[in-house]
Amino acid sequence: VSGVQLEGYVLLQGRLVRADRARVSVFDRGFQYGDALIETLRIDRGGIIALEPHLARLTASARALGIPLPECDWARDIGRLIERNGLATSEAWARITLTRGVGPRGLLPPTVATPTRVVSCGRIDPGLLEARRRGVAVIRLGFGRGAALGEHKHPFYMPSIVGKEMAAARGAFDGLFIAAGAVQGATTANLFAVVGEELIAATGAGVLPGVTRARALTAAQALGMKVGRRRLAPSTLVSAREVFLTNSLFEVVPVVRVDGIRVGSGRPGPWCRRLQAILLGESIR
Amino acid sequence: VSGVQLEGYVLLQGRLVRADRARVSVFDRGFQYGDALIETLRIDRGGIIALEPHLARLTASARALGIPLPECDWARDIGRLIERNGLATSEAWARITLTRGVGPRGLLPPTVATPTRVVSCGRIDPGLLEARRRGVAVIRLGFGRGAALGEHKHPFYMPSIVGKEMAAARGAFDGLFIAAGAVQGATTANLFAVVGEELIAATGAGVLPGVTRARALTAAQALGMKVGRRRLAPSTLVSAREVFLTNSLFEVVPVVRVDGIRVGSGRPGPWCRRLQAILLGESIR
Repeated sequence: VSGVQLEGYVLLQGRLVRADRARVSVFDRGFQYGDALIETLRIDRGGIIALEPHLARLTASARALGIPLPECDWARDIGRLIERNGLATSEAWARITLTRGVGPRGLLPPTVATPTRVVSCGRIDPGLLEARRRGVAVIRLGFGRGAALGEHKHPFYMPSIVGKEMAAARGAFDGLFIAAGAVQGATTANLFAVVGEELIAATGAGVLPGVTRARALTAAQALGMKVGRRRLAPSTLVSAREVFLTNSLFEVVPVVRVDGIRVGSGRPGPWCRRLQAILLGESIR
Repeated sequence: VSGVQLEGYVLLQGRLVRADRARVSVFDRGFQYGDALIETLRIDRGGIIALEPHLARLTASARALGIPLPECDWARDIGRLIERNGLATSEAWARITLTRGVGPRGLLPPTVATPTRVVSCGRIDPGLLEARRRGVAVIRLGFGRGAALGEHKHPFYMPSIVGKEMAAARGAFDGLFIAAGAVQGATTANLFAVVGEELIAATGAGVLPGVTRARALTAAQALGMKVGRRRLAPSTLVSAREVFLTNSLFEVVPVVRVDGIRVGSGRPGPWCRRLQAILLGESIR
């Protein structure tokens, strides 16, 4: 079907399957309707970072949406998969996809559904590790992520794909979603800004409650930083002392340019560095 | 994997495949990222209704998003499938799903992608035919469809699923999306209201440019109706003379109750009936 090489293994319904043979029904509601949830986790030399809050979010969203939760040991599953793919000594990612399973046509979920669960994994792109050290340039996009059910981590990435492509076309690492006059974050990351003596976590409709965002807020409070959660105007970014992004794959990435304009000194700032040290230190233990 | 019975055949990459054996890779970008487009068409005794505008929308969206368009004869494909499934004398639906195909992990599309195309079909639910005759009750939802890339018919139906479930729980046919103080439409249909002597097509961010909506507007103009395209406040609906929904499966369905409140006479109104006659007449030829 495709020229893309798929290597290694995935877990499909808890069973190890070669990646190039892992298939789901075209009637899977994940494929038909985006009726699915995902979680993406970082695995640091075999250790799963922040598994509990990821599973807590998955569980809460599945309950809210009525997607049945399979009985399974995610930690064991992810561990087996990482081992099987030879990633036990690497910095890796794992993605959980949980769909409502196969259903007949129609939006209303079937009364009895067997959820589909897939776990895939891979090595973290070295470009992300570099981004973490050096900082990145971003652009502001002319559109938002969409606020509908934005509190759930669902696999509707079309706005993110378009945003990433626009950023790449302008030589930037990522694009920032703007909706209703507020910055929602980057295409797959939450956004923070240091304004004056305060660390502000961008918030508002369509902002995903990121696991790393919550960990960064906790760490910032432990460090005695003054912390706020507010809507951030797009213009605030270029006058901020620091801007940075958080997600579970790269943890904390400094933003050094917004639309070509230097943020602060144009280099990763001290607040960002302190949070990186704590979050990455936490993960290394 | 599931207890759901899948009968008949689908077309996968243009080949007839038994429905219960039709599978796609878990790395298909449709499954991973919702990186896909869909079209749903009505087939009246073998005749595909409004194929051209459906394909025009699919083509325009695929070009805008950079999804490669496969070389294929959709009309022939749909015809073969309808025939094979024994639906050539029925009122049926066909759904086209076009994804960007299999890709490695990462939002940026692969430079060379082989799109995945699936066509499925089935008999139109007799409940829809009944709805068309009798009219339906709807409720107003407390949320919207999401406006991000809402001009494309992408398969992100999570808000629609939640809305349909809420409507069903209240004994209603469908729920109306409300965003930024305006009615966007029902979960899978556009909305019209007759206010005074004018037919208003609800418009605004997140409103899909429906094929049947466009056909209804053309028909209304041909009938000499005064036509407007405007944002509709949720409160307008209960004072409207008529309200109705359009989509490609049921064409035109009268709304006779909104949140339990009668619309107009509480029965399908004359403007709606005239448009039904034209649109269904058109389709019967």
